[in-house]
Amino acid sequence: MTDTTDIIETAHAMADAARRAVLPFFRAADLLTDNKDQSGFDPVTEGDRATERAMREVLAARRPDDAVIGEEYGATTGTSGITWVLDPIDGTRGFLSGTPTWGVLIAAERDGAPVFGIIDQPYIGERFCGGLGQASMTGPHGNRPLCVRGDRPLDQSILFTTFPEVGTPADAAAFRAVADQVRLTRYGIDCYAYALLAAGQIDLVIEAGLSNYDIQAPIAVIEAAGGIVTDWQGGPAHQGGRVIAAAGRQQHAAALDILSRHAS
Amino acid sequence: MTDTTDIIETAHAMADAARRAVLPFFRAADLLTDNKDQSGFDPVTEGDRATERAMREVLAARRPDDAVIGEEYGATTGTSGITWVLDPIDGTRGFLSGTPTWGVLIAAERDGAPVFGIIDQPYIGERFCGGLGQASMTGPHGNRPLCVRGDRPLDQSILFTTFPEVGTPADAAAFRAVADQVRLTRYGIDCYAYALLAAGQIDLVIEAGLSNYDIQAPIAVIEAAGGIVTDWQGGPAHQGGRVIAAAGRQQHAAALDILSRHAS
Repeated sequence: MTDTTDIIETAHAMADAARRAVLPFFRAADLLTDNKDQSGFDPVTEGDRATERAMREVLAARRPDDAVIGEEYGATTGTSGITWVLDPIDGTRGFLSGTPTWGVLIAAERDGAPVFGIIDQPYIGERFCGGLGQASMTGPHGNRPLCVRGDRPLDQSILFTTFPEVGTPADAAAFRAVADQVRLTRYGIDCYAYALLAAGQIDLVIEAGLSNYDIQAPIAVIEAAGGIVTDWQGGPAHQGGRVIAAAGRQQHAAALDILSRHAS
Repeated sequence: MTDTTDIIETAHAMADAARRAVLPFFRAADLLTDNKDQSGFDPVTEGDRATERAMREVLAARRPDDAVIGEEYGATTGTSGITWVLDPIDGTRGFLSGTPTWGVLIAAERDGAPVFGIIDQPYIGERFCGGLGQASMTGPHGNRPLCVRGDRPLDQSILFTTFPEVGTPADAAAFRAVADQVRLTRYGIDCYAYALLAAGQIDLVIEAGLSNYDIQAPIAVIEAAGGIVTDWQGGPAHQGGRVIAAAGRQQHAAALDILSRHAS
């Protein structure tokens, strides 16, 4: 088996294990939460922890020489050159509320950039993956290739965001300036927005305050589907922060122009 | 067969027909839309129309003496005393964006109040129903009874809304005053929020600018699950307008107190 095939199969095995681990916690009446950020609301569930452990167990068995960075259990070093970047439940607010738009994020990084990523929605049974020659989704409608919509003017674009829940007031003002120019803005749907962009449904995702584990898998999936992901200055977004994802160069350039004028 | 059984079976047959009619339009690349409200964004798809026709065909075959009120095709009179109130796609913005939180709303009304309702999410394959002795859901996790969370103070409550997309500035200010008091607010999830309230996941839904076909099915489902739905003055919400749904009397009273002070 080539290393490419092994990375892809390992990622799917991790996503399968994550589904089994996380689903018993979703919409469970006795869901345990604690508040890891006293300044805001960031519920960390037992499900979050159990899901990251399940993915790490798959890695330990299949690829013990890889490094791991996870939202819940931090960094584990490795020697293979591959680092797995994991967010067991992206969208914990949605998870806590019962909304089926949270996801499990899995990315394999090499030389500082994600080479393969999975966005998995366990409740619906949808999986979006991209990189290493793959760009496809599976779900209730079967298998489909992933392909972004392509170029479109801002006034015909659909924009998704986690604002007003994230970012500084200056970030929010910059976001608002873009939102004022688009056809439709939708809020609060977490990582599922990136999946919809890769699936050709929407044009832009604009966020702030992201961590690397929030964005590495979306970058791999969206780039494989022909889209663009950068920071608000047009540079690499691999480390998170303020991020814009676009279905075409036209939307990307137009939104970036507005963001760069409004945000320092 | 009793009339009660026939109403329930007819509602499920309509929901089944609606699924078959609407799914080919969801995430279809060539989705046709037109703009029925020039002042805002209200996409009406061919899927919307086809879905209401499919439900009306079931009614015409099974219960031709019932009246019908539908979002797309208006009112049809009847002689039985039962009026079906239909919204083929509640959440057209979500539908257009590919988000799986839109729904088909079906309510059977007698003497001015909904007696049975269904909220159906065809893509996920989830159906929430309530009234005439029923309060249950089916979905990827199988069958479950529907039961609201019950009493809870406002500062422990989860609030959902379609704000900032709906309502007047005064409505939005009143909503904001409640949102400032709750534990967590989530945005833009359309009728799925009512389903989550009936399923015991969330505490409050506050909306404005609703039509009767937006709220009759949620009223039936939520009341069957033990919840409360009123307007912002505590009166009946059957005709839409400004609506509050609550998982318990405590949240309802606390939110209503704030809303009634902020909104005329």
